Amino acid sequence: MISEFGLIAHLKELCLSLPQNGFEGIGDDCAILPIGEGEALVFTADLVVEGIHFLREAMSPEEVAKKALQVNLSDVVAMGVAPVATILSLALPQEIVQSDWPLRFAKAYTSASKQRGVALIGGDTTSSKREICINVTAIGRGKVQQIKRRSDARIGDIICIGRPLGGSAAGLKEILVGRYDSPLAQLHKNPKAQIEEGIWLGSRDEVHAMMDISDGLASDLKHILTSSKVGAEVEIDRVPIAPGATSEEALTGGEEYTLLLSVQADKVEELGQNYLEQFGLPLYEIGRITAGPVGEIQWYKTGEAITGSWQGFRHF
Amino acid sequence: MISEFGLIAHLKELCLSLPQNGFEGIGDDCAILPIGEGEALVFTADLVVEGIHFLREAMSPEEVAKKALQVNLSDVVAMGVAPVATILSLALPQEIVQSDWPLRFAKAYTSASKQRGVALIGGDTTSSKREICINVTAIGRGKVQQIKRRSDARIGDIICIGRPLGGSAAGLKEILVGRYDSPLAQLHKNPKAQIEEGIWLGSRDEVHAMMDISDGLASDLKHILTSSKVGAEVEIDRVPIAPGATSEEALTGGEEYTLLLSVQADKVEELGQNYLEQFGLPLYEIGRITAGPVGEIQWYKTGEAITGSWQGFRHF
Repeated sequence: MISEFGLIAHLKELCLSLPQNGFEGIGDDCAILPIGEGEALVFTADLVVEGIHFLREAMSPEEVAKKALQVNLSDVVAMGVAPVATILSLALPQEIVQSDWPLRFAKAYTSASKQRGVALIGGDTTSSKREICINVTAIGRGKVQQIKRRSDARIGDIICIGRPLGGSAAGLKEILVGRYDSPLAQLHKNPKAQIEEGIWLGSRDEVHAMMDISDGLASDLKHILTSSKVGAEVEIDRVPIAPGATSEEALTGGEEYTLLLSVQADKVEELGQNYLEQFGLPLYEIGRITAGPVGEIQWYKTGEAITGSWQGFRHF
Repeated sequence: MISEFGLIAHLKELCLSLPQNGFEGIGDDCAILPIGEGEALVFTADLVVEGIHFLREAMSPEEVAKKALQVNLSDVVAMGVAPVATILSLALPQEIVQSDWPLRFAKAYTSASKQRGVALIGGDTTSSKREICINVTAIGRGKVQQIKRRSDARIGDIICIGRPLGGSAAGLKEILVGRYDSPLAQLHKNPKAQIEEGIWLGSRDEVHAMMDISDGLASDLKHILTSSKVGAEVEIDRVPIAPGATSEEALTGGEEYTLLLSVQADKVEELGQNYLEQFGLPLYEIGRITAGPVGEIQWYKTGEAITGSWQGFRHF
């Protein structure tokens, strides 16, 4: 048995023997292709699979469509650039094809794309035996200079997050016991990528590393630490918790699509003020980047170092 | 109930209301993005779904991997440009994850990519409840000038195909009755995109429209006719039939990944000779582009016009 991260690590290793053909940043939220005149394209893909990412009875086709789009746009803006296009692949079982599901999905997907100014440039449709399987590939475009990589965190940077956490995980628990329409369930079913926020933060030089929280704060912060070859200290009491969620859900809950970033320490206050003025939301400072141990988070609770290990969401 | 082409048509219509953001050719084998200095990127995606595109018991992970890559590279070279990168998404059920399937797949996929000089720049891995679902997004790069669109066929052009047809459809029939390892079954399981041929044909100005045959000759030629607003005459006796296949399989069988192109009439002989020298294969001339009726194929058998309607493969 191989874990998801094991398979990804293995694929990454195999990738090293392949030509790069001008692409870089493989292993980040997106791959990057510089295309001249200081510009670059970024690329990402995400699957949304029935029974894993959603239950057919719990989510409407409109909700599935918007989720499939949002999770991909979230990866693009986490690089600090604007999404410009998606490619949509749909595998649909017979009873879904025979219902109004495909047209409702298509309408919601294109309508949400329009709202974000994103083109739909192609894709594939096919039947499947039993499960709905959706893949979205998203393309972003921006200045090479403004791209935020996971590997750009620097010692002394302040670690910030863009929203209270844990609501999605708490909502998933409600869905799994059949409460499909509670406020928390709604939060889980209707993820909102921080699109304007990501593009705006991309334009700020004091933002160093950035990614979106899809596997959970503990797990995703470690991706930044490993890529940047640094460590971190995080004050648990400073991690904002969404109403109705627990502290553990906030630290480990996945599918948040909240931005996680490291900011140059002497600029973080001004950035936070500008961000508040721009978006009406605070930028939450939860800790700082340290020299190490590399890849490790030292957690603090009311100022005391504690031992604790939180695992993020694993897909298998 | 909506047909596959109905859903695609509906999606295309919805796409028209979206911004294009510099992309063109939506609805072709690939979407096109000019990136300056006379260059363009092209983008395509294809799903490979268990139970629809392959049977787990009939195909090895290596065969599934190579097929998933080939069908996508085929769409790229059908535009006349070279493939440069893919993005790979894998949804895998638990029993597959617990086997050696993922690593065997990964090894074969990257090895085939290496052979073609294609980068693997990202993707997604997740679990699924029951079915293996694979999406590959492929990216090509070439001169804008050399891109071959479906809409570029001109009246008087000679219609050519790159290989005898029908072998894949005949092989599928063998697989469906359990003969997984017959020569025809092997042909179906190991599709070979005409990669070098497509890139080479892309460099020739006398090649006007080009696409790969994935749904069947009759069905795919109609895509060219509709896009180019022309008709066609095809001499059935000139359509080369793969050994072991029937004439109907040659006219309608899908998953061929053979190139279908329209060539300026006064240049077709020279092109065919050069092609033969280059690849050791003839370019088969099967008919010509006419003024119309638009979107219609007039079939001929031993010089006599016949009435006949062949449908290509439909995914649902």
